[in-house]
Amino acid sequence: MNTQYVSGLHLARLLAGPPDERPYYAALAREIRRLVLDGRLPARVRLPAERDLAAALGVSRTTVTAAYDRLRDQGFVESRQGAGSWTALPSGTVPPGARFGMSHAWPGSEVIDLGCAAPSAPRIFPEAVAAAVARLPEYEAGPGYEPAGLAVLRATVAARYTERGLPTRPDQIVITSGAQQACTLLFQVLVESGDAVLAERPTYPHALDALRRRGARVVPVGVDAGWDIELIGSGLRQAAARVAYVIPDFQNPTGRLLDDAGRAALVAAAQDADALLVADETFTELPLAGSVPRPLAVHDPARVICVGSAAKLLWGGLRIGWIRTTAPLVRRLVLARESFDIASSVLDQLITDELLHRIDEVRAERVEWLTRGRDALTAALGELLPDWTFTAPAGGMSLWVRLPAPVATDLAAAALRHGVRVMPGPVFGTEGVLEDRLRLPFVLPPETLRTAVERLAAAYREVESAPAARPLPAYV
Amino acid sequence: MNTQYVSGLHLARLLAGPPDERPYYAALAREIRRLVLDGRLPARVRLPAERDLAAALGVSRTTVTAAYDRLRDQGFVESRQGAGSWTALPSGTVPPGARFGMSHAWPGSEVIDLGCAAPSAPRIFPEAVAAAVARLPEYEAGPGYEPAGLAVLRATVAARYTERGLPTRPDQIVITSGAQQACTLLFQVLVESGDAVLAERPTYPHALDALRRRGARVVPVGVDAGWDIELIGSGLRQAAARVAYVIPDFQNPTGRLLDDAGRAALVAAAQDADALLVADETFTELPLAGSVPRPLAVHDPARVICVGSAAKLLWGGLRIGWIRTTAPLVRRLVLARESFDIASSVLDQLITDELLHRIDEVRAERVEWLTRGRDALTAALGELLPDWTFTAPAGGMSLWVRLPAPVATDLAAAALRHGVRVMPGPVFGTEGVLEDRLRLPFVLPPETLRTAVERLAAAYREVESAPAARPLPAYV
Repeated sequence: MNTQYVSGLHLARLLAGPPDERPYYAALAREIRRLVLDGRLPARVRLPAERDLAAALGVSRTTVTAAYDRLRDQGFVESRQGAGSWTALPSGTVPPGARFGMSHAWPGSEVIDLGCAAPSAPRIFPEAVAAAVARLPEYEAGPGYEPAGLAVLRATVAARYTERGLPTRPDQIVITSGAQQACTLLFQVLVESGDAVLAERPTYPHALDALRRRGARVVPVGVDAGWDIELIGSGLRQAAARVAYVIPDFQNPTGRLLDDAGRAALVAAAQDADALLVADETFTELPLAGSVPRPLAVHDPARVICVGSAAKLLWGGLRIGWIRTTAPLVRRLVLARESFDIASSVLDQLITDELLHRIDEVRAERVEWLTRGRDALTAALGELLPDWTFTAPAGGMSLWVRLPAPVATDLAAAALRHGVRVMPGPVFGTEGVLEDRLRLPFVLPPETLRTAVERLAAAYREVESAPAARPLPAYV
Repeated sequence: MNTQYVSGLHLARLLAGPPDERPYYAALAREIRRLVLDGRLPARVRLPAERDLAAALGVSRTTVTAAYDRLRDQGFVESRQGAGSWTALPSGTVPPGARFGMSHAWPGSEVIDLGCAAPSAPRIFPEAVAAAVARLPEYEAGPGYEPAGLAVLRATVAARYTERGLPTRPDQIVITSGAQQACTLLFQVLVESGDAVLAERPTYPHALDALRRRGARVVPVGVDAGWDIELIGSGLRQAAARVAYVIPDFQNPTGRLLDDAGRAALVAAAQDADALLVADETFTELPLAGSVPRPLAVHDPARVICVGSAAKLLWGGLRIGWIRTTAPLVRRLVLARESFDIASSVLDQLITDELLHRIDEVRAERVEWLTRGRDALTAALGELLPDWTFTAPAGGMSLWVRLPAPVATDLAAAALRHGVRVMPGPVFGTEGVLEDRLRLPFVLPPETLRTAVERLAAAYREVESAPAARPLPAYV
């Protein structure tokens, strides 16, 4: 069995048909490069023969030949006489993890990883681990499975919602293996293949993946300039969407915060369209200044389903998230989750429980660290890349930068060669748009962020100076 | 939004149409009871009005009324004037976790849980936790995500395969959040909706769930009397199955072990039909006597995909499993797993790594414990339920018992009232067969197993003495 190639038809499907730009070979090369960069087409996958891809796309073979040639010159394709061509990443710069989609470099790698917006473990982490380990004997005698989550953690999470103004009982909580699993589970239970689901554009790419895998029809609604509730309402109604996936708190990637009036209006629009709202509240505990409005679910506790996560506030190495909804839906979710992974790690749940009991300490540390990171990043950008623009967010973990030109994908490719991994705007969209956008997390140390911006500036100069329409071998 | 009821149409779908037995109301009551017992219909779900269910099933309203009456008498339905009827579990006996499908009671509950075949943590568990915690600082500085799994654990798992006679490199391993997630991921990547997948009957119920959720057409092949390779081969070819899911080592639930010649023949049949074999090797490290033949994958390392798990050998509270396959398929699986849950718990991976390095100690403890449990269970059954028959398995964790009559579902209901939770045969099948079968795990202490058998015997006497065709309120 040979699984290391991609067929012409499959690649054509990944490319979602021929782009309608000219010269066509350049657009084709750019699209294939994007697939390699965002990991949908891993490195070292054998590419289809030129005639096969040409046939699958309905273009001339010469076009494909020129696209492959360009990719070869750029280091994204390698070929050997008689062995065909396969995908590659430009030499030497790629950390092992970065070959895989949104995977991440571990520290020590030479590449600075701005692909991932997740901080290291907080200072009190070892204490929380020790306390959790001390509680472990209570569970070791049992089989270790509890599909709904440990009772203690469900109670702690419920209490935290109640503190935030949303009265919640433990039986309204399902503990999941992270927020991503929470979304996957919700889409599994609430969405049928072919259903319309409204999602913000830009949004969290893994949520889009999960929706696509479910066979949902994603209806994007732009939030780059903020939430237009009227547009959302008409989008929900026109598409007859059953579910909308929204990130009201320091939206990922824009960093925007939906205000209280906007929340009430959003819920009213959902009521009007009889749609459920899945509110991803991953960043809700992370305001860097000011406070966060009451949870969206305050406005309709049954219609709004809350998703929370230990990954960003606590640590990504804890694979713990949760869902807050009605008790009956909790029961359906628990049944569904068993066929995914049965239950979550007992020890991770206990550590999360310990850390949530000391949430104020963790939050204070995070806020101090992220504020310094944000300020270092914005200062370095202001100095070295003054024509990049952004609004410094009041919370969350990343900056959503606007470039002066639609070159984000090329810039990401160049940046990788300069030793910085970044996520270009299109990764956060539903189709190939947002090319003038870049997400820059500020979770790394200030001096590392400064170095990253220096490398980005060098990469940007390279991309900027490349003539826009010159054929091989430059970038377009 | 009210999600706490099941509509007539939905319930009719769960029931997979009217059974063709008479009296029909009794068969209907039995099927609904089965849905409640195996958790597909949770407790406290409002049932459809009698006329709605009658219409959805195409039967008379009197039939539904009689079925509801019977369920009410048996304690599986409660009703209140004006408020309708809802599902219930017979009074007082149900541990909190047991309401949910295959969920499990924690120790301390009065019900003895034979629903779950998973042991407590091994004696060296605290040492392994301490050693893992000591290694944690190395990872705390990073974001904590590694979708393919920590490099150290991938290497340890690969080395274990190599030791078992199947040369394996670390890049052929994906670490998952348990074997169940491994199967879900594999089905996601290898199976399209509508594809035929061959599965053993009986088999592991959560694997069937995962296949059904994927939209696979499950083609069952009986293995109750052993593997009939010719039948499997023709099943694969006739259904044009792309994948077969098999459990060659101490098959769950039959406990059977496929011998070396059978393995070679099974792989040859898969080659002949050009099907992939997903081999669930959850119990491979747990022979109680003798040895296990070489891994199935020895006969075709690319065609056979191995799934392994920490849950049974080490501890279920560690949500860690793995897949062994070709490096290219590993890359595809890693991409797919990111949209499920991004990555597995770092600490659980480190604990698993520690325990795998001391696998001989863990195994010796398990074998001693399970052998005592098996012997205690078989002795108690021989004494108290001499007309139940079984073959004591040479490995694994449970006994597959044959009852003298097809009463497993009724027996499970009666057993719950007597304080034992057991899984009746039909849970392990694809349609309502195996009613003369019961799975009895032997992971609990010998004295608990003895008590469980005493309770089972009392429940069995009750079921046995109930006249087979008497109407309300007895069990049929």
